[in-house]
Amino acid sequence: MAVYTDISETELGAFLRGYDVGELLSYKGIAEGTENSNFLLHTTQGSFILTLYEKRVDRDDLPFFLGMMEHLAKKGLSCPLPVHRDDGVVIGELAGRPCAVITFLEGMWPRRPTVTHCREVGKALAQMHLAGADFPLRRTNALSVDGWQKLWAQSRSRADDVHPGLVREVDAEFDAIAHHWPKDLPEGLIHADLFPDNVFFIGDRLSGLIDFYFACNDMLVYDVATCLNAWCFEKDISFNLTKGTALLAGYNSVRQLSQAELDALPLLARGSALRFMLTRLYDWLSVSEGALVKKRDPMEYVRRLRFHRSIRSASEYGAAVA
Amino acid sequence: MAVYTDISETELGAFLRGYDVGELLSYKGIAEGTENSNFLLHTTQGSFILTLYEKRVDRDDLPFFLGMMEHLAKKGLSCPLPVHRDDGVVIGELAGRPCAVITFLEGMWPRRPTVTHCREVGKALAQMHLAGADFPLRRTNALSVDGWQKLWAQSRSRADDVHPGLVREVDAEFDAIAHHWPKDLPEGLIHADLFPDNVFFIGDRLSGLIDFYFACNDMLVYDVATCLNAWCFEKDISFNLTKGTALLAGYNSVRQLSQAELDALPLLARGSALRFMLTRLYDWLSVSEGALVKKRDPMEYVRRLRFHRSIRSASEYGAAVA
Repeated sequence: MAVYTDISETELGAFLRGYDVGELLSYKGIAEGTENSNFLLHTTQGSFILTLYEKRVDRDDLPFFLGMMEHLAKKGLSCPLPVHRDDGVVIGELAGRPCAVITFLEGMWPRRPTVTHCREVGKALAQMHLAGADFPLRRTNALSVDGWQKLWAQSRSRADDVHPGLVREVDAEFDAIAHHWPKDLPEGLIHADLFPDNVFFIGDRLSGLIDFYFACNDMLVYDVATCLNAWCFEKDISFNLTKGTALLAGYNSVRQLSQAELDALPLLARGSALRFMLTRLYDWLSVSEGALVKKRDPMEYVRRLRFHRSIRSASEYGAAVA
Repeated sequence: MAVYTDISETELGAFLRGYDVGELLSYKGIAEGTENSNFLLHTTQGSFILTLYEKRVDRDDLPFFLGMMEHLAKKGLSCPLPVHRDDGVVIGELAGRPCAVITFLEGMWPRRPTVTHCREVGKALAQMHLAGADFPLRRTNALSVDGWQKLWAQSRSRADDVHPGLVREVDAEFDAIAHHWPKDLPEGLIHADLFPDNVFFIGDRLSGLIDFYFACNDMLVYDVATCLNAWCFEKDISFNLTKGTALLAGYNSVRQLSQAELDALPLLARGSALRFMLTRLYDWLSVSEGALVKKRDPMEYVRRLRFHRSIRSASEYGAAVA
């Protein structure tokens, strides 16, 4: 659910006259994304998405996010393309919020990802990594080890109320992960949130990637680790090795992971599971009952974390042995 | 806000294969309507709305609502047309809920209705009344005097907490209205909820009427009274006589209101204001803080009621004097 701001048809019509998108025919607030207000527009020229950036997105990051989408689209990656205003500007303002008009991408995110979906998302992730190599802007990953520690400091005192023993378990994770977090692996532009709801398919064909609002510069293989967490566990949090194999093979078919990257995968997957556990835990403890945002159980990521702790080699995720 | 039920792309794709609507390209839950879950679909043949009927809509009423839309559309009124499944059926089932696929209507509801909008909605309402004359199904207005009394019985004990003196004022209204409620005025198919968010425009042109889920058989002029409440008051609850004049002139240009109908208008407008006050009051008292439904102040309709109580003749709404 995410329409926090309503806009009037007259202000939207006037706003769009600054863009070469035709005449506005309709607009609907859509229940997609959790950070921003999104509207699906129909104009005489086709369909567009209007995103109003709510307070959780830093206005200073918008040139990075929107520039990245434009860069990737120009490199041939299928993702929404920000529409420039007639005066060249990409970031507009509506209802007191920064906003952007982007092209509409047909496709549906898979509620139950298949092995084929996993292979395709692996390929697309590697394509994104290659396409992003020469993107000139940089953004630090605000949700890497330092950021996790801040989140943990805000939740730690109540974490045992959510699950007894959670404090001790997470403290131990920080000890293990923070001290061994890799430093010398290939870095670049990563999506950092490539969950199924951010990947569109039409049938088995991947039609595009969306929602780059966590994108940043970090280790490329960290993005792979996040995809393992996001795509290859079943509802009962069992790891599906066939899906892992497909995802890694898809990725390797476009960009080959090095041995050093593969060796780091179990620790990075633990870190990535910890990151999503921590944001869920924070929301769990801070979002009031009945609010618009649906709360998600942080324990699903503690269970992933435990799985990754048991892994000795990337081959257990399905990586082909060299 | 109204997406209560999520559906998977595979179940929706399979469901749509029963209809001649092409291949599904995308679907988005949209924040429109308050009773049902609505999705905007794009297919290779165009745009459609999928409505899942949630529990507030009685399944037994669906043949009336959907049959009415089809009847009106065939008579040339611009409204969504239910799409028949290949086997002829209109009411399907998805995610355990009855549902229907209807054509998508371009247009936007006016956040700040103008005099022109009021004239056009008057015309369209009269066109609907004429087009509905030979619709064979019937549905009693569940929200007429008897229904209001039931709502009042459920809210009365806490009404003075919302506004001191409300109990005495509403009790007096019931005495005045129930005893004089007209019986012999022309009846027919009415929309019963023709608020601005149910009327679409592209610029000044009315592109269609939507949301027939309160439609029923009742006095035609009661629908006019509701439109006066819905369209002709400003945000400060002052009555805009120019808008009232335009709405009534628009209506009369298509279907002439009789003197008896005009004479009843002040009382019907009071009744209609009471009806919307009571449903708002009920929601105000029963919907929990922070729920998905936005609460609306019942007192806005008490103030309309007081205005109507002061009216001696329909000319004060802008009706042309015979």
